[in-house]
Amino acid sequence: MTMKPFGELMPRLQALEIIDNHIKPIKGTKKIPIGESNGRVIAENVVAGFDVPPFPRASMDGYAVKAKDTTGATEKKPIALKLIGIQHTGGVFDGTVNDGECLEIATGAPMPDGADAVVMVEYTNKDGEEVSIEGQVAPLRNMAEAGADMTKGTHVLSPGKTITPGVIGALAALGYIEVEVYRKPRVAIYSSGPEIAPQGQALKPGQIYDINSYTLATVIEANGGVAVVIGIVEDTVESIKESLGSASEHDLWVVSGGSSVGTKDLFSEVMEEMGTIYFHGVKTKPGKPTLFGEVDGTPMFGMPGYPTSCLNNSYVYLMPALRKMARLAPKHWVKVKLPMGHEMVSKSDREQFITVRIEDGKAYRVYKQSGDITSMTHADGFIILPIGTNKADEGEEVEVTLLHI
Amino acid sequence: MTMKPFGELMPRLQALEIIDNHIKPIKGTKKIPIGESNGRVIAENVVAGFDVPPFPRASMDGYAVKAKDTTGATEKKPIALKLIGIQHTGGVFDGTVNDGECLEIATGAPMPDGADAVVMVEYTNKDGEEVSIEGQVAPLRNMAEAGADMTKGTHVLSPGKTITPGVIGALAALGYIEVEVYRKPRVAIYSSGPEIAPQGQALKPGQIYDINSYTLATVIEANGGVAVVIGIVEDTVESIKESLGSASEHDLWVVSGGSSVGTKDLFSEVMEEMGTIYFHGVKTKPGKPTLFGEVDGTPMFGMPGYPTSCLNNSYVYLMPALRKMARLAPKHWVKVKLPMGHEMVSKSDREQFITVRIEDGKAYRVYKQSGDITSMTHADGFIILPIGTNKADEGEEVEVTLLHI
Repeated sequence: MTMKPFGELMPRLQALEIIDNHIKPIKGTKKIPIGESNGRVIAENVVAGFDVPPFPRASMDGYAVKAKDTTGATEKKPIALKLIGIQHTGGVFDGTVNDGECLEIATGAPMPDGADAVVMVEYTNKDGEEVSIEGQVAPLRNMAEAGADMTKGTHVLSPGKTITPGVIGALAALGYIEVEVYRKPRVAIYSSGPEIAPQGQALKPGQIYDINSYTLATVIEANGGVAVVIGIVEDTVESIKESLGSASEHDLWVVSGGSSVGTKDLFSEVMEEMGTIYFHGVKTKPGKPTLFGEVDGTPMFGMPGYPTSCLNNSYVYLMPALRKMARLAPKHWVKVKLPMGHEMVSKSDREQFITVRIEDGKAYRVYKQSGDITSMTHADGFIILPIGTNKADEGEEVEVTLLHI
Repeated sequence: MTMKPFGELMPRLQALEIIDNHIKPIKGTKKIPIGESNGRVIAENVVAGFDVPPFPRASMDGYAVKAKDTTGATEKKPIALKLIGIQHTGGVFDGTVNDGECLEIATGAPMPDGADAVVMVEYTNKDGEEVSIEGQVAPLRNMAEAGADMTKGTHVLSPGKTITPGVIGALAALGYIEVEVYRKPRVAIYSSGPEIAPQGQALKPGQIYDINSYTLATVIEANGGVAVVIGIVEDTVESIKESLGSASEHDLWVVSGGSSVGTKDLFSEVMEEMGTIYFHGVKTKPGKPTLFGEVDGTPMFGMPGYPTSCLNNSYVYLMPALRKMARLAPKHWVKVKLPMGHEMVSKSDREQFITVRIEDGKAYRVYKQSGDITSMTHADGFIILPIGTNKADEGEEVEVTLLHI
């Protein structure tokens, strides 16, 4: 086995286009309780099965009247109406408002027969069985007709809409207990490399703890996926082949480590044999040794073993793929323009993602080597240096993509 | 019982200040698995218990050398070193690199004794037992020292930091299985009103389904709280007293319905008797009949029964309270400036929150009455009309707060 350098590196936008071409939105659906559906993607047409509200109702506290009976009423020239009863919410008044009559009514209570408007309590004066109306109302004033919100038969929601609190409200109003949503993509994760040890056991010489399974799972769960952590796979051709044999049991795979081009780059060898490699090596830093391909029709990412490279890549390459698969809109990154707090020089022939802290409205590089997870731990965001740019001056305005908003 | 109009309405900022004065951040903590800790707030000091990485390691594939042996090496004038072995990751080379020698080494593998730099494979040529070095390296080049990421004893994280993927990475690197976080505030929710029916049973005349329990629970769970849905409480003094008797079993209460000033405004009556009302009635629309107070030291919101008013209020008043209690940063609302797609007139003496859809880069009002949940269902965001402003012209630039980003 010999070390083989990468061939030509793939620029980011080209890599993202290739990824996009090979990622298909999930088709499977399932029913889940509406109370657990926030952020999921609806997979059914929702049509109102009845009027909402189901009955005409008062939208203000006051008196249900015939609008015509209030014509000309003012504070100085009130019109007296006969009070025939009271209508709280929840019940139905068993009677009719006739000419010259009114019914005391609470917000949300069904309008009585005969009445076609509500006079707000603020414009009335009650004296025993008589109510002085001190303002005139037009028909339908301060009330809602049956079906004003959703008329029976209204097409309220279509498949593909991401569920929000307001959507859950509409489902609840229509009496839904469950809603059909697209299932979440199942994303298999494993870390390879003999140096990787699981938490909970003491490190042997040359070992480090598994970081990437945790950071990847976190990003996956936060972007519409279910992380299936396979754990640590031995870095042998046999072990890798065995894992990838079950490729199609999951929707997407993310393997970290083993995708570099070192002496033991077994993952890409196995990928070449069992599937197709679409690209291997991207023109971004960190994250060069990134692989994308498929096995048995299942897309596969090979991520660099370095935790920072792996996590940066999961934002740059994995997140767009996963969100498309989960039918979610692309992540809306919040970006702010800030001056650099110091001169920063970073030489590379690749596009560079540089993590920064924000202090007193200025951006400061988190000075760590690319392998160091704490460069992410302490980062508020990152700036991008395009290919050909190797520095930013002190005070220069840079665009910071905020990582945690 | 008589209808009583509100007294003076509380402007929003004043209401928020009062709320803020009565909300205290949660003190209790619990241990949870690090893989489930994203978005939680750390409650312990994390100090590195060992060096990360625990050993000096190669940060490139190549050859571990004594830097001084490469002095003056170029592609045209390479220097030959004797290859003494190979060092994959995970193991420890049992030997020393002496003068004139090199060791083939993989990214992440421990540096052998005697070597103080790595020459990248791209600048070498291997021929059997001999390696031509075609570029010189300085000491520590292409390697990381033990503790380069976190030195043993480093104070890595302090209580109060919100956990991100990068934080989880640091915890994983340090071998953490669990992390101590602040517990989530438990928020009791109930809907009151005889017109409210639970989903799953047919509506009787005058009834509507419970919406607010669902929308409130969704907003609470998305903002660091645990929603404890008590369900529908009967609108009688006895039932309300009985529920509020257990006020201190939860951290915060949100009651919807029953906080209006209608004939049956029993909630505020009970609140007056059992606790303290800090304000009742806010100068915002929708949402006027909003109450904030406390019973047995437990803060209580009384929200309007109208689903849209209740949901709007949960963004405007509840969310800041809950996020402070949960020790989360205030919600970062994304705002965009867009032209109105049409003239919009909306008269009120209160500050108005008006839901809008965005189409072709323009804002269009979701034309529904304030009680209609679909005004939220179909909203992309809202605009705020300050007190005294009753319209926006077609083409006028308005600031839209995006609801779902």
